[in-house]
Amino acid sequence: MKDWEMISSRQNSRVKNLIKLQQKKHRYRQGLFLLEGFNLIETALKAGAKIEELYLSQQLKIDSAEVQSIIARLPAGIEPVILEEDLLKKSATTVNPQGILAVTRINERSLNDIWQLPGPLLLLAEVQDPGNMGTIIRTAAAADLAGLLTVKGSVDIFNPKVVRGSMGGIFSLPLCQSITLQDIKQCLAGDQLKPRRLVAAEPRASQSYYDFTFTTDDIIVIGNEARGFSEEMADLIEQKITIPLPGSMESLNAAVAASLVVFEMLKQFAQN
Amino acid sequence: MKDWEMISSRQNSRVKNLIKLQQKKHRYRQGLFLLEGFNLIETALKAGAKIEELYLSQQLKIDSAEVQSIIARLPAGIEPVILEEDLLKKSATTVNPQGILAVTRINERSLNDIWQLPGPLLLLAEVQDPGNMGTIIRTAAAADLAGLLTVKGSVDIFNPKVVRGSMGGIFSLPLCQSITLQDIKQCLAGDQLKPRRLVAAEPRASQSYYDFTFTTDDIIVIGNEARGFSEEMADLIEQKITIPLPGSMESLNAAVAASLVVFEMLKQFAQN
Repeated sequence: MKDWEMISSRQNSRVKNLIKLQQKKHRYRQGLFLLEGFNLIETALKAGAKIEELYLSQQLKIDSAEVQSIIARLPAGIEPVILEEDLLKKSATTVNPQGILAVTRINERSLNDIWQLPGPLLLLAEVQDPGNMGTIIRTAAAADLAGLLTVKGSVDIFNPKVVRGSMGGIFSLPLCQSITLQDIKQCLAGDQLKPRRLVAAEPRASQSYYDFTFTTDDIIVIGNEARGFSEEMADLIEQKITIPLPGSMESLNAAVAASLVVFEMLKQFAQN
Repeated sequence: MKDWEMISSRQNSRVKNLIKLQQKKHRYRQGLFLLEGFNLIETALKAGAKIEELYLSQQLKIDSAEVQSIIARLPAGIEPVILEEDLLKKSATTVNPQGILAVTRINERSLNDIWQLPGPLLLLAEVQDPGNMGTIIRTAAAADLAGLLTVKGSVDIFNPKVVRGSMGGIFSLPLCQSITLQDIKQCLAGDQLKPRRLVAAEPRASQSYYDFTFTTDDIIVIGNEARGFSEEMADLIEQKITIPLPGSMESLNAAVAASLVVFEMLKQFAQN
């Protein structure tokens, strides 16, 4: 293992900081977030993310091609740190972090920046389930949307469960979190900004999502899993569409509804 | 609380059986599964499911309209049982079971029965994430599919996390679990059975899902989240379609992919 640092104490300050990254407050204080397992670290590297720390379990086969290939792509000056298996498991939030953890920098764009990008956006208004948020980011990245915005009160995008669920989509999708409805109003009213309109799926709307004509400047809005949209948010929505449900359920899962609307939009763009 | 039974010991046999329902083996031994919280119990009752046991926390407001309405719909001879809050929490798998648990009977249909029902089916081939399975059942019930089949090796439909994610969809959707590929072959070859074909989304297929013409006898097949289809399963699939992904991701979440295909099919049926 060359002369890499080896940590076996829970009291070590690097380990303390690493474990703190499980909490949102500390992620933002440090400006960093956690990547667990080979797949996510590979995706991050391929997307050009800069790994700032790499932790390997003492029990990991350091000589394997998989590990060596990751080490070879660390930025100059960054060396792996070896952790006792126990400490690595404590630092991870997954049951099976595969003996490898990395830390990379939180990278958000400004609202105005994202607003001006060519192509449609997603706006998540208080989506709170980390699984849903991760899946929606994965869908948005797969659909090559211009970016994703979240309203204050949504789950943190750099929550380890969201990061995992996104399957690395967070690295390719321009993101801006915790904006306010006031911010959105200002963008919608801004002369210097691209004109955009807010479109949302609602159970009681009359127009079906597949009879609606999407534009590349649309912002698809997704509400809270249980409560839908606040009144103030609903007032900002220009177009309401519905996903017809012939069966016995009142609604779909939020990530499913978001994906149906996004992929109907993609299909219209591909066919026109 | 009238003279309902009140349990405060973890050693009580009813409580022991209740806690065992968290494990698949015991669910099938008892033929029962767990419903946690008001929403799920309400949905079960509305769908006509027979509640066999009802547990209320000692801290629950028994006089509330919500609780009384559930008690009023218990089958003759079934009385609520009061549990100490601690015991109720131990018996539940959710963080917040809202002080109410119910037990109802596992209700599966035979493969041949479901095969003959009019309308399309879903076949889940080793879908393993309970969140995905629950979401897919919710989608299938919302789409009013004829039924849902799972191949051996898929997560148990009566797992509490699946039941919750389905939002009660398990009560309206005809279900048959743990069938083998041999069973499917026999149904496909059966003279006495309705002719059906297996259709699956695959990243490398050439035909887009929206250029494909679905029929009401189709069976949409969804593979394992990481491995996709086994070779033997792939051999049974007659039509391969693809969901075009313009962005940086190689695939979509399994529940999202299933929902896109199912709702494209619905749209075609609605438009023809």
